[in-house]
Amino acid sequence: MADRASRGLSRRSVLTRGAGAVVGGAVIGSGLVGGAVGGAAGYAGRGLLDDDEAVPDWETVADSRVVGAATEPFHGPHQAGITTPPQAHAAFLGFDLAAGATRAEVQGVLRAWSQDAARLTSGRGGLADLEPELARDPARLTVTIGLGPGLFDAVRMPEKRPSWLRQLPAFPQIDQLEDRWSGGDLLLQICADDPLVVSHAARILASGVRGVAEQKWAQRGFRKAVGTDPTGRTQRNLFGQIDGTVNPGPDDVDFDRVLFSDGRSADGQTQRWMRGGSSLVLRRIRMTMDTWEEIDRTSRELSMGRRIESGAPLTGVHEHDPADFEAVDEVGLPVIPPESHMARARQRDRGEAMLRRPYTYDDPPEPGRISNSGLIFTAYQADPVRTYIPVQRRLAEQDALNTWTVPIGSAVFALPPGAPEGGYVGQGLFEG
Amino acid sequence: MADRASRGLSRRSVLTRGAGAVVGGAVIGSGLVGGAVGGAAGYAGRGLLDDDEAVPDWETVADSRVVGAATEPFHGPHQAGITTPPQAHAAFLGFDLAAGATRAEVQGVLRAWSQDAARLTSGRGGLADLEPELARDPARLTVTIGLGPGLFDAVRMPEKRPSWLRQLPAFPQIDQLEDRWSGGDLLLQICADDPLVVSHAARILASGVRGVAEQKWAQRGFRKAVGTDPTGRTQRNLFGQIDGTVNPGPDDVDFDRVLFSDGRSADGQTQRWMRGGSSLVLRRIRMTMDTWEEIDRTSRELSMGRRIESGAPLTGVHEHDPADFEAVDEVGLPVIPPESHMARARQRDRGEAMLRRPYTYDDPPEPGRISNSGLIFTAYQADPVRTYIPVQRRLAEQDALNTWTVPIGSAVFALPPGAPEGGYVGQGLFEG
Repeated sequence: MADRASRGLSRRSVLTRGAGAVVGGAVIGSGLVGGAVGGAAGYAGRGLLDDDEAVPDWETVADSRVVGAATEPFHGPHQAGITTPPQAHAAFLGFDLAAGATRAEVQGVLRAWSQDAARLTSGRGGLADLEPELARDPARLTVTIGLGPGLFDAVRMPEKRPSWLRQLPAFPQIDQLEDRWSGGDLLLQICADDPLVVSHAARILASGVRGVAEQKWAQRGFRKAVGTDPTGRTQRNLFGQIDGTVNPGPDDVDFDRVLFSDGRSADGQTQRWMRGGSSLVLRRIRMTMDTWEEIDRTSRELSMGRRIESGAPLTGVHEHDPADFEAVDEVGLPVIPPESHMARARQRDRGEAMLRRPYTYDDPPEPGRISNSGLIFTAYQADPVRTYIPVQRRLAEQDALNTWTVPIGSAVFALPPGAPEGGYVGQGLFEG
Repeated sequence: MADRASRGLSRRSVLTRGAGAVVGGAVIGSGLVGGAVGGAAGYAGRGLLDDDEAVPDWETVADSRVVGAATEPFHGPHQAGITTPPQAHAAFLGFDLAAGATRAEVQGVLRAWSQDAARLTSGRGGLADLEPELARDPARLTVTIGLGPGLFDAVRMPEKRPSWLRQLPAFPQIDQLEDRWSGGDLLLQICADDPLVVSHAARILASGVRGVAEQKWAQRGFRKAVGTDPTGRTQRNLFGQIDGTVNPGPDDVDFDRVLFSDGRSADGQTQRWMRGGSSLVLRRIRMTMDTWEEIDRTSRELSMGRRIESGAPLTGVHEHDPADFEAVDEVGLPVIPPESHMARARQRDRGEAMLRRPYTYDDPPEPGRISNSGLIFTAYQADPVRTYIPVQRRLAEQDALNTWTVPIGSAVFALPPGAPEGGYVGQGLFEG
C-alpha cells in the first residue's frame, strides 16, 4: 500500500527533475522561507513521474479501486495524519466534554476512537458500524486525535497540560473569531482520498461518544483530487496562489525535532507523556473572493511577494529559488515589498519551522453572497509558542494579504504520540 | 481523453463478468425497477477491469495528472453533464434574474456562460479569469445550463415555456421545502473529478453575471472519488444503500427518447427550440442520520426492499436480479414489503423511466447536531410531468424511507439542447 518506504523509491525522479517538483504541504502564504528548508525533495519524498514511466489513462483509473484500496497505518510511534502526504479530503471535528464527564469516561472515548480508527483505517467497519460496506475502501484514511486545553481541567489533571497548550493570544488587528468554529476539548482530524469515506468515518466516530463528548463544530475541506496534480507539486489555493512552497521535509535533519515533542516545552516544562507527540494550530481563514477579484495580477503578486504562474519569488524564476529581500528595482523600491506575505512570514530562525497541511473549504454561501470559502489552515509543530505564535504576530501586525483574509475560527490541540497495537491514543496521559 | 467511443471498448469486460458490474447513475432509492432497463451494461457502457489488465498503484496515480487531464466536450447536440458518467464532485447554482433584466441581457448571460464553459472545460481560464492556472487541469469538467420557469416571463416569452416547466406540485406529506434551496430562473450544474476545479469554475461563472443574474443558492455534493469504486459499480449513499441500481442505459433502444425531447410535451404542446434538450428535477433531500442509526439492518433492508450488502431485491441474490413482488414468506407476508421504497418506486410503465445522477452532501451541521447531510437528487428526462411526478406522488403517499428523508429543496429546469461551436446554450429560444 502506501507506506513511507515505498514512496522513497520515486525520489530519484524528483532529483533528476531539479526544481520543478516538490513538497506536498501548503499554507495560505507561501512564505516561511527558511535556509535549507524544503529544497528539491518534498517531505513525502516523492515527485513527478519520469517520462518513461507508464502513466495510466483516466479510464484505467476510474475502472479500478487503486485509490480506495490504499491504506495508512494507524498504529506507530507518531499519530498518522501529520507527516502523511495530505489526502484529498478532510473533516475536522471539535468536541466539548459534557459537564461532569469523568476521567474514566474520557479514557473510554479515547479508547473507543482508537479502536474504531484502527478498524476504519484498515477497511473494516467500526465496532458498532451498521454500514461496514462504507468502510471497505479506506482510501488512505487517517484519524488523528487531539486534546484541547479544557480537557485537562475536566479530568482534574491540570498539571499534565503542556505549557503551550492554551488558546492563542488575540490578534485584534485581524481576528473576527466565531465561537462556532473555535475551541474544543477534543479534536478528530479525519482525512482520506475519498469524500464518502471521510463522511462515514466522521459519523461513526462522532455518534459513538455522544453523552460524553458533544460535537461543537465540524469543518470539511479538500485539496486537489488524486491524479489531478503530481503529489510532489505545490498546490494552489482559491486565490490561485501556489501555496506552501516551504515546508520542512523528511530529508531535513531536524524534521522530527520540528514536528515531534521530546516532552519538553520551550519554557522548560517537561511532560513525559507527550514524547513523540505534536501539536496542531487550526485556523479557519475566510478568503474574501469578492474583493480579491477586484485587483489585478500585478497587485496580487506584490501582495504575495511571489509570481502566480510559477510561485517563484519576485526576485527569482523558479518556485524554489531563494528570495532576495535586498533587491531593489530601477527606482530603488524593494522588488519584494516588505509588507508582502512572503517577507512577513519568512522564518526569522529555524525554530519557527512548522509543517502546514491546509484544506480549502467552499460551503453554502450566506444569503446575498456568491461564495463562502477559504482555508482550513493547519500548522503542526512540537511547540506552537515557539513557532506559530511569533510568525502569526508578525503577520497580524502587517501582511498585505490580510486585506482579503479574515480568521474566523481558532483552536489549539495537543496531538499525543501514536498508539501501539492494543493501546489507545492519549493513554500515557493517564499512566504514571 | 474520455470520449464516449473509447469508453465503449471496455464494455466487453462487463459482459464477461455478468451481473457484478453496472450503471453509474443513482438515486436515493434503488427502486424504479423496469423491464429491460439497466441490465448488465451501465449507461456509461463500462465495467470492471479484466483481471489481466494492468491496474496502476496509488503512487502511480497520485504522481500523475491523468484524472486532471481528462476532458468532456462542451459542444454537441446535447449538453454535457446529463449522460456524462458522473464526476466525483458537483456544484449546483441557482440564480434569479434581477428585476428588469432585459431579453438581451439574458442572452448575454447565456452567451457568456457558454463561452466560458467552452474554455474552462478544455482547460483554459474564463475570458475574464485572473487565475487561469486553476483551470489548467479540467478533470472532466462539464457545465450544464438550465432555464427555470420564471425566465420565460422575464424575457416576455411565456409562450415558449414548455408546458412541463413549472414548479412541482406540493407533496405535503413529506415536503419541508426551504426557499433557500428552491426555485431559480437559471441553473448552472458544474461537475468535475476535482473539487478545486468545481470551485473555481463556479466562482468564475457566477461572478461574471452579477447585476443580471443573482445567485440564489449553491449546493455542493460529491460521489466516490475516481479510483475508489469501479465506474460500472452502483454506488452507496450515506445510508449504506446501494443507490441507483436501475437507470436507463445507452444500450436501451429508448435511451435518447427517455432523456431528450423531440420538442413535444406529453400534453401535445410543441416547442421546437427544445428539440434535443432535456429537463432536470433537483431535490435536496435531508437524510436524518440520527434516527436512521436507531434501526437495525433488517429494518433497513425491509425499508429499502433490497439487501444492503449486495443491493439485491429481498427475493434475489444479485443486485440486478428481477424482483418478485408476489413472493411471500412462510407466514404469508410479502418478502418485499409493499410499502418498501423499491415497491413504491417501481416503474409502472416505461414512460416513467428517468436518469438519476445524484450527489451526497455533507455540510457544516447546525448547532447541537452531529451532521447536516443528505442527497442532492437529480432526475433527467424529456418530460418530468410524464416521469418524475407520478413516481414522486406514489412515494409521497407511502414509502418506508420517508421516515428518514425530508425534501428541503426543490427546483425544475429546462436543459436546452447543446450548443454548436460558436453558438450558445439556449440560443434557439430566441430565434424564430
